[in-house]
Amino acid sequence: MSSAKKLLGDYSNEPSRRPELVVNSKEPFNAETPPPLLVKDFKTPVDLFYVRSHGPTPDLDVSSHKLEIGGEIKPAIELSLSEVQTIGQHVTIDATLTCAGNRRNELNAIKKVKGVGWEISAIGNATWTGVRLRDVLLHAKANIDSPHLHVEFIGEEDCEEKTKYGSSIPMTKAADPKGDVLLAWMMNGKPLTRDHGYPLRIVVPGYIGARSVKWLRKVNVIPQESQFVYQQRDYKLFLPHVNWDTVDALWDSAFSLSELSVQSAICEPEKDQVIAKNSPYTIRGYAVSNGRRITRVDVSLNNGADWETADLVQQDKREEKGFDNRYWSWTLWQFKVGKFPSPCTICCRAWDSSANTQPEQARNIWNLRGVMNNAWHRVEVRDH
Amino acid sequence: MSSAKKLLGDYSNEPSRRPELVVNSKEPFNAETPPPLLVKDFKTPVDLFYVRSHGPTPDLDVSSHKLEIGGEIKPAIELSLSEVQTIGQHVTIDATLTCAGNRRNELNAIKKVKGVGWEISAIGNATWTGVRLRDVLLHAKANIDSPHLHVEFIGEEDCEEKTKYGSSIPMTKAADPKGDVLLAWMMNGKPLTRDHGYPLRIVVPGYIGARSVKWLRKVNVIPQESQFVYQQRDYKLFLPHVNWDTVDALWDSAFSLSELSVQSAICEPEKDQVIAKNSPYTIRGYAVSNGRRITRVDVSLNNGADWETADLVQQDKREEKGFDNRYWSWTLWQFKVGKFPSPCTICCRAWDSSANTQPEQARNIWNLRGVMNNAWHRVEVRDH
Repeated sequence: MSSAKKLLGDYSNEPSRRPELVVNSKEPFNAETPPPLLVKDFKTPVDLFYVRSHGPTPDLDVSSHKLEIGGEIKPAIELSLSEVQTIGQHVTIDATLTCAGNRRNELNAIKKVKGVGWEISAIGNATWTGVRLRDVLLHAKANIDSPHLHVEFIGEEDCEEKTKYGSSIPMTKAADPKGDVLLAWMMNGKPLTRDHGYPLRIVVPGYIGARSVKWLRKVNVIPQESQFVYQQRDYKLFLPHVNWDTVDALWDSAFSLSELSVQSAICEPEKDQVIAKNSPYTIRGYAVSNGRRITRVDVSLNNGADWETADLVQQDKREEKGFDNRYWSWTLWQFKVGKFPSPCTICCRAWDSSANTQPEQARNIWNLRGVMNNAWHRVEVRDH
Repeated sequence: MSSAKKLLGDYSNEPSRRPELVVNSKEPFNAETPPPLLVKDFKTPVDLFYVRSHGPTPDLDVSSHKLEIGGEIKPAIELSLSEVQTIGQHVTIDATLTCAGNRRNELNAIKKVKGVGWEISAIGNATWTGVRLRDVLLHAKANIDSPHLHVEFIGEEDCEEKTKYGSSIPMTKAADPKGDVLLAWMMNGKPLTRDHGYPLRIVVPGYIGARSVKWLRKVNVIPQESQFVYQQRDYKLFLPHVNWDTVDALWDSAFSLSELSVQSAICEPEKDQVIAKNSPYTIRGYAVSNGRRITRVDVSLNNGADWETADLVQQDKREEKGFDNRYWSWTLWQFKVGKFPSPCTICCRAWDSSANTQPEQARNIWNLRGVMNNAWHRVEVRDH
């Protein structure tokens, strides 16, 4: 490979992908699901699941790939995938992953933000199989009871920022038996694809996708948050008046995003879709929180003046989950309209079991990184 | 006591109270703290702490009072306070309690709601000492690992509704070693006063106050939520168009409030306070969530058009709490203004570590029981 290619990133060995994916950036590859396909299945098909990458897609050889457990674990341990698979019980969980930048385009339309331009589908729900990170930490004799430690994940991705990808989560989440953090090698019952982290990735349910590091190379037990830019810079919230001239003094005081806020979006109809006035139509969408149960989704056909309650079509089974705040999967919902009042503005908002709901206006939560937009989702519908 | 008195409730033996308390209802006694006194101390003095009662204040004799542990615990166990005190390690925690009806008056001003008319001070922060409910459940050989069980609390209060007061929480919270649910007999280092549940009460950090049952008489392990009206009716959310004619069909499908949503309020200045234009002034208030850390409080002097960040003056120490979502105490905040732009509308909103924030307008979350009002808190300020 020429050094110029290496500098810019060599994209000559990308995997093949479904043409249906909506590509927001080709190099690195960032793409999302067309909204109507997103709500077709409770589990998102792997090849339609949104892809977030920061550089060329690694093409790793499982027979030589090693995972290192290090940081405060001294000496560091090296494990092959098959060794990882012997460490703990194999666990399968359903969990939604979503990028903190999901719905960034709505913020960008208000005032320019920096980041990949996502619509509403930087999200997907899948089944993940792996071993618990907790078991791996116990195997490595980490001090899992310290509430002050963090666990860092470093992937094999050569990012645009001229670094590997790295990020961290608190030990309290990493080692929580009910936190369900996995070192996963399967997605929807099959080995991970290259786009989703083959051969091994982290899955952190309830947290922003940025913490579920793909192509996992290292797990480090560390005394503070990861110092990678993806922990210290990219995923933080600021007030609307903070700009690129004033943000530098504020980075360290802003918290690194971790748990998700309550979120919902309308996937059908899509924006500017035509629905004949007075025709019947079924509105569909998703809602998700940070493990908390979605207790209600409200739909309005007049931009929030009046609301009705949507049907919750599918979610993690309540009888299985009890009251454990482990509703890691999204909730799919629908709302049947007998006579559609086109043209109109539909909007939706979700509530979770801690009685949090979504803010009304994206402009009030605008931030220069364009993250965590969970304002009421609005869709304009036209008549013929 | 005459039977008429018993029927209406006998209020001839109420404790003496501080005249500063703002009384919303005398019989039963419901009163809150004047807002400026509320933010004077991180720990609310016991005799200024809001009082929520549903009937005459019990006057119990600790030497004969017994706590029963029953329901699925058969035969039921009876314990004196001194026996309870031998069951587990004595634990002291700081926790904020708040009524789900806090800030109900703002909803009532939009459209009439039913319930005690609270302003912003049905909230207080205190130190509680007791034994963990978990330890008592283990002592009673309850199946603490079942995610489907609930734990019911019944108090000695003879409520207006002609019943004792009863309520429940999920076993997942009751038995969580990090849930910090206590059977408490001390508040701020002294035995509970009659107004706060003497001799024994439950303290459920992070949950609505209605679950922290006072004058505790029974703890029942049960297969479903408590059937008391205080669990099945009083503390549920509905859409703004639901009224007393239409609510009956909806009670069972609505979830019983448990974890708190993110909340904040301005305590100084008070509403309609006069602040001379261009004079200096320090705005003060509180913010709290369901154990999640308050990461930011925003203040606006122009009704939400522009925001600045408040100083977080005091909260649970981060170094003690790590990332454990156990910030049970509120956060006191302040915002110093050099030249106050009176007259104006101040407002505040808080963010927590799951990136949830407060909705903009109370009218959008109005509900006929007037609960969980966490809209941006607004205070109108006048000039001379």
